[in-house]
Amino acid sequence: MNNKLLVVGTMAYDAISTPFGKVDKILGGAATYIGLSASRFSLDCGIVSVVGEDFEKEHLELLKNQGIDLSGVEIVTGGATFFWSGEYHNDLNIRTTLETQLNVLENFSPKIPEHYKSPDIVMLGNLSPDVQIKALEQLKAKPKLIVLDTMNFWMEHFRAALDQVITKVDVISINDEEARQLTGEFSLVKAAHQIHQMGPKYVIIKKGEHGALLFYKNQIFSAPALPLEEVLDPTGAGDSFAGGFTGYLTQTGDISFNNLKLAVIYGSAMASFTVEKFGTQKLVNYTPSMMATRIKAFKELTTFDIGLKQTITQYE
Amino acid sequence: MNNKLLVVGTMAYDAISTPFGKVDKILGGAATYIGLSASRFSLDCGIVSVVGEDFEKEHLELLKNQGIDLSGVEIVTGGATFFWSGEYHNDLNIRTTLETQLNVLENFSPKIPEHYKSPDIVMLGNLSPDVQIKALEQLKAKPKLIVLDTMNFWMEHFRAALDQVITKVDVISINDEEARQLTGEFSLVKAAHQIHQMGPKYVIIKKGEHGALLFYKNQIFSAPALPLEEVLDPTGAGDSFAGGFTGYLTQTGDISFNNLKLAVIYGSAMASFTVEKFGTQKLVNYTPSMMATRIKAFKELTTFDIGLKQTITQYE
Repeated sequence: MNNKLLVVGTMAYDAISTPFGKVDKILGGAATYIGLSASRFSLDCGIVSVVGEDFEKEHLELLKNQGIDLSGVEIVTGGATFFWSGEYHNDLNIRTTLETQLNVLENFSPKIPEHYKSPDIVMLGNLSPDVQIKALEQLKAKPKLIVLDTMNFWMEHFRAALDQVITKVDVISINDEEARQLTGEFSLVKAAHQIHQMGPKYVIIKKGEHGALLFYKNQIFSAPALPLEEVLDPTGAGDSFAGGFTGYLTQTGDISFNNLKLAVIYGSAMASFTVEKFGTQKLVNYTPSMMATRIKAFKELTTFDIGLKQTITQYE
Repeated sequence: MNNKLLVVGTMAYDAISTPFGKVDKILGGAATYIGLSASRFSLDCGIVSVVGEDFEKEHLELLKNQGIDLSGVEIVTGGATFFWSGEYHNDLNIRTTLETQLNVLENFSPKIPEHYKSPDIVMLGNLSPDVQIKALEQLKAKPKLIVLDTMNFWMEHFRAALDQVITKVDVISINDEEARQLTGEFSLVKAAHQIHQMGPKYVIIKKGEHGALLFYKNQIFSAPALPLEEVLDPTGAGDSFAGGFTGYLTQTGDISFNNLKLAVIYGSAMASFTVEKFGTQKLVNYTPSMMATRIKAFKELTTFDIGLKQTITQYE
């Protein structure tokens, strides 16, 4: 029997402009990227989300064909799907939101199907903290691990609710600017320490093209991002990371620090695929051999052979 | 007999202001940081530079006590030492130059002592490319390795001379913004490829708190920066990196890609010491056990245990 991953997050249509191209309306949303990444591992994955009547059948089929359980995706009759439009500049780390139409997301109240109320792992995609809390309240048993993604918008406008969610999760996954904003600490080491004290045992700080840091007690793991020849569209990178991260952990069922390191590598690999094409294009065309090649590249990228004993003798 | 490292670079006094403090006039300069870092390895290190009559005896003594050969340091009677004043903001990656007094540096013509004209390795610190060329012209034999540091100022105003130096070196060490400016490529992978074509076999791209990338043919090595609790003053980080990098290579005499990876780690360790205190303070108080501890931390920071065979079987 497979382990279960519950994903709560948005499904959306995106309009994206980057220095390398422009698309008007493509499949997007946190839960979409998380689901497409996570479902490449051996697990049962269910999404809880909401879409409008305009959501294309082919996009539902795309997710179902990956084996993703969509019984928790509400389709609102007469409603329109959440729409986001954004622009990236030359420095792809910086983006401007051009338009946000919440549509059916505005009154979204998550409903977790009975058979997903006792998942092994929960991935709370970036979403209103109120919705995240409502989802957690429906669980029947404490999951092995709850992972939270969030963003600066919620820090600025919904801090109290966000603080409440943070106390309830085991892992938080945010970017460097958000970690600084959440804590008021510029040093990421100090920021991570402070977030540990808010609740999460594990703190992941994503640094875009500079990789990610995983903090646990006084230990730090640094995963590089693979230097890529071409980055076409960073949209969904963080969500693909979350999907690879939780997908691997759900498959293995092992939530030790050592295994979380590997999960960060798998998450980084999934993110590296996503940014190489627009939208979900590369994730959709994922093959297992792509992953094998990329994991090998990550290993080569970071391996150096210093004999520690020798070093210590030499220097002491 | 020790291998020889020739360092060509500035010696200076710096005034530095950061969010954590302010100093009016402390020992600085590229050659100073390079020499203090490199001389912690087993080698003979000679500096070629220029200072004014105001340069303190105690600062010359400090370098001599590290075993550094200062016979190539010209002391200009009646002249004043190069002075730089800069300010760092909350994001310590960004700095503003407040004042530059070239002083004796303006008419500096490097004179390499006879016994340093056939060094094993040459480190050209950030300096006018004309001075760098003049230094290389005095060499009697081709060194094993010539390493170049430079900056955006020379790219903007002395591009032709800089291009000439670049064709003559084996390794270039610049930061990410400089790599982009030098090549017009935003992707660091593409930028490195283009720089390879200009001459250097090895390209090092420094990313401050995000570590450094070493490019060689189609291979990439990513060294993280150690996430530090406190960064007080980034001045001299790049020079300390260069000193640790060339110091280790000079000691070992091995310029293979695998050994350059280790040199990048030693360079990163030296840089991590420098930024923890103002100016040269921490470098001056360096002990071998500091290095042993830090190398161990780098190893722990980057080690993850993915059985590659297993991964490939699993995914194919």
